[in-house]
Amino acid sequence: MLTYDLSARGSTPRYEYLYRCLRRDILSGALASGARLPSKRALAEHLGVSVITVEAAYSQLVAEGCVESRPRRGYFVLARAMPGGFEPEPAASRPQPVWRLDLRSNRVDAALFPSGVWAKLTRRVLAENPDALLEGAPHEGLPELREAIAAYLRGYKGMAVSARQIVVGAGAEFLYLMLAQLFSGAAFALENPGYPKIRLAYSASGALCLPVELDAQGVNPGSLRRSGAGVLHISPAHQYPTGLVTPLPRRQELLRWAESTGGYIVEDDYDSELSYAPRPLPTLSSIDGAGRVIYVNTFSQTISPAIRIGYLVLPERLLDEWERRLGFYSCAVPSLEQHVLARFISGGGYERHLARLRKISRERRDSVLAAFAASPFAGRIEIAEPGAGLHFLMRVRTNQSDDALRSRAAELGLRLGFLSDYAFDARRVEQHTLVINCAGLDSERLKEAVSLLGRVLEDEIA
Amino acid sequence: MLTYDLSARGSTPRYEYLYRCLRRDILSGALASGARLPSKRALAEHLGVSVITVEAAYSQLVAEGCVESRPRRGYFVLARAMPGGFEPEPAASRPQPVWRLDLRSNRVDAALFPSGVWAKLTRRVLAENPDALLEGAPHEGLPELREAIAAYLRGYKGMAVSARQIVVGAGAEFLYLMLAQLFSGAAFALENPGYPKIRLAYSASGALCLPVELDAQGVNPGSLRRSGAGVLHISPAHQYPTGLVTPLPRRQELLRWAESTGGYIVEDDYDSELSYAPRPLPTLSSIDGAGRVIYVNTFSQTISPAIRIGYLVLPERLLDEWERRLGFYSCAVPSLEQHVLARFISGGGYERHLARLRKISRERRDSVLAAFAASPFAGRIEIAEPGAGLHFLMRVRTNQSDDALRSRAAELGLRLGFLSDYAFDARRVEQHTLVINCAGLDSERLKEAVSLLGRVLEDEIA
Repeated sequence: MLTYDLSARGSTPRYEYLYRCLRRDILSGALASGARLPSKRALAEHLGVSVITVEAAYSQLVAEGCVESRPRRGYFVLARAMPGGFEPEPAASRPQPVWRLDLRSNRVDAALFPSGVWAKLTRRVLAENPDALLEGAPHEGLPELREAIAAYLRGYKGMAVSARQIVVGAGAEFLYLMLAQLFSGAAFALENPGYPKIRLAYSASGALCLPVELDAQGVNPGSLRRSGAGVLHISPAHQYPTGLVTPLPRRQELLRWAESTGGYIVEDDYDSELSYAPRPLPTLSSIDGAGRVIYVNTFSQTISPAIRIGYLVLPERLLDEWERRLGFYSCAVPSLEQHVLARFISGGGYERHLARLRKISRERRDSVLAAFAASPFAGRIEIAEPGAGLHFLMRVRTNQSDDALRSRAAELGLRLGFLSDYAFDARRVEQHTLVINCAGLDSERLKEAVSLLGRVLEDEIA
Repeated sequence: MLTYDLSARGSTPRYEYLYRCLRRDILSGALASGARLPSKRALAEHLGVSVITVEAAYSQLVAEGCVESRPRRGYFVLARAMPGGFEPEPAASRPQPVWRLDLRSNRVDAALFPSGVWAKLTRRVLAENPDALLEGAPHEGLPELREAIAAYLRGYKGMAVSARQIVVGAGAEFLYLMLAQLFSGAAFALENPGYPKIRLAYSASGALCLPVELDAQGVNPGSLRRSGAGVLHISPAHQYPTGLVTPLPRRQELLRWAESTGGYIVEDDYDSELSYAPRPLPTLSSIDGAGRVIYVNTFSQTISPAIRIGYLVLPERLLDEWERRLGFYSCAVPSLEQHVLARFISGGGYERHLARLRKISRERRDSVLAAFAASPFAGRIEIAEPGAGLHFLMRVRTNQSDDALRSRAAELGLRLGFLSDYAFDARRVEQHTLVINCAGLDSERLKEAVSLLGRVLEDEIA
């Protein structure tokens, strides 16, 4: 059995120390590729720590790709990933599958974007301001764009922000990397289940990622406190994939956690623009009196994945620290796109586009719910969390595993997403819960979706 | 005196263990902000390690902004930088200076870029392929652009690369972050002196950065081996700021280091496009038979800082590993720019632009050297390393410190760069050596440069 002296950990948290010990032994080869790690319970008993401690350490190793979790078999060491020893497998051709229909992707339907308006603005910027091509932007983004974003947030979301708090970056993922660097050394608490890219980006940056459990109101404060994390990353407006909306009292409780521990909250508002709730709740950022919230949002979700522009709203207290530690980075968004987007927002084009997008999204979602309710499989499904947003959970009564359903769907060219895909540990999440994304389901594709889903669910009766 | 038990470090290198101990105590507050650290020699003796070990640990803390090196006074702890304790200073307004003339910036003169051609190509892409705005690119970049870059490297640099080895990213800094993640856990050996942003980007990603000394042929293999690094980042074609060109035998020696240790070399070819040497040496990447070299280059340097597009050439052996670990990132370069750049390269516009840029760069540089030789201060300067490229070193005979010269120049609106600005430890680099960048010196600005430099150097005689 693995033995580490946890009393030598100094002020390092137990899980982090254990994780570092395991990682060192994997990277050095002391734990060979393919070796099976002890079960969480066994190692916890052996070391005299809690199962949660072992789980946090294992989760981080899984997230970093050092260890693999195999359902019902346990945890296994993967090939070492460090220079000085790492020898990857020879390259094999792995063709990407082409899906007939993708219910897993949460990308907005790019066909809805007014590309003509954007192209016209681009031509206009080129004609009126040819230097836009050549002038580098300040590292935090073009002043015009930061002002346009701040005005949008003030007018549309009631956030009292100024342009100097805005940092423009090349998409949300890039900004996650910057936050990992700003808070280097801190452990990040992430929603479990949650959006996998968030965990991948923080983990790839070397941050320790800790799962926190959700209850009916969102992140559970007890689970958060027990995690010992310094930074919490959440999507209180519309959690992915559960669809949970965090009510105001819970938001205030999370803010109190940040204040009392000196922690920070990253509020990821990735799809609030598409929410059609009658009265959206105030953002955490706007009720944060103590400067503990960093707000993050992206235009890739509402405009097009081809235009990767995201932004942060930093609290005043972090402006100097950001400048001092990350001010050396150049702004990675081309100046041309920044000029065009600034005009698109300040000219009202963005709000018009969002209004149309919300209307169509709501219609699509209503059509999907109606079509599923009228389908042959209506009696075997239950729609959960049908709140505002473009995705919902659908529980299926079935005697098959998620993997069997997924494979059968894939044979038909249908890509399905399951709640278990979004969990730190798939084995601890309920099976048979699909995450249905409506974004791409126009009327034609919806018909196909009902037909294909019907075949997947039928099959398993036989 | 600080006491750490280095025998508890397991397989962690001494410098890394010491660095982690110090960092932990700084972040926890055990070492208070403002505290003076022991001298390197004293701590080395106390702990029974070499001065190099302490120096590597201190350098990393300085690079991360946890510790400050004050000339002739020593090393001091800076404010803590971690959530759960970190309280930054209140924001102060720090206006950026506006320079009358900047001899430190190595940015190419953007006015030389054919912005009309680029704008025309942009309009053409928008007209012929309006979907270019909407279609997201694969995470490694658009196939057209990767093919165009590969063809350029084959034709122009004689590199036998295929499009599948190319990864397009939002500028070189972004690609450094990706490399830090690909090689997470490895220590990075960096040229000392060298380009500060490279160290800042790797350090901010949590990588341990180790200085390796340069001799007349570039990176010293002995210093490299002693560093114990897993990855070496170098610019063999034209080192910044020394201007050193690494000759072929040394290149081969560095490749042997990588092969024998299982390490990797990041070959940063940032300004080889502007080299006007008659016969450029083959890149490390093209003489690397073992797949240990990652080639990196950028268009921000040759086109405009407003267009942040860089690329890597990965060796075949790393393609799968890259895909597996970093394939989740979206390509952060807008598809429109990728289409335009692909046409600019494959249509020959890029090569025509480079040819013109090289001619003008050479003329500017020759004019600068001639003007300095004919200046009143000609007798007090010595030009070093006048090889190919846009910058050179200039040694000045003076009785003033670099800081005094820098302040006096700043009063006149002249920004100067010194060799000591680029060193891990400024105290160990020779004083009075300026790094002169010619990129922006057209004939008018050159006259001003001579006049202002004359005043700076005159002053100090008095």
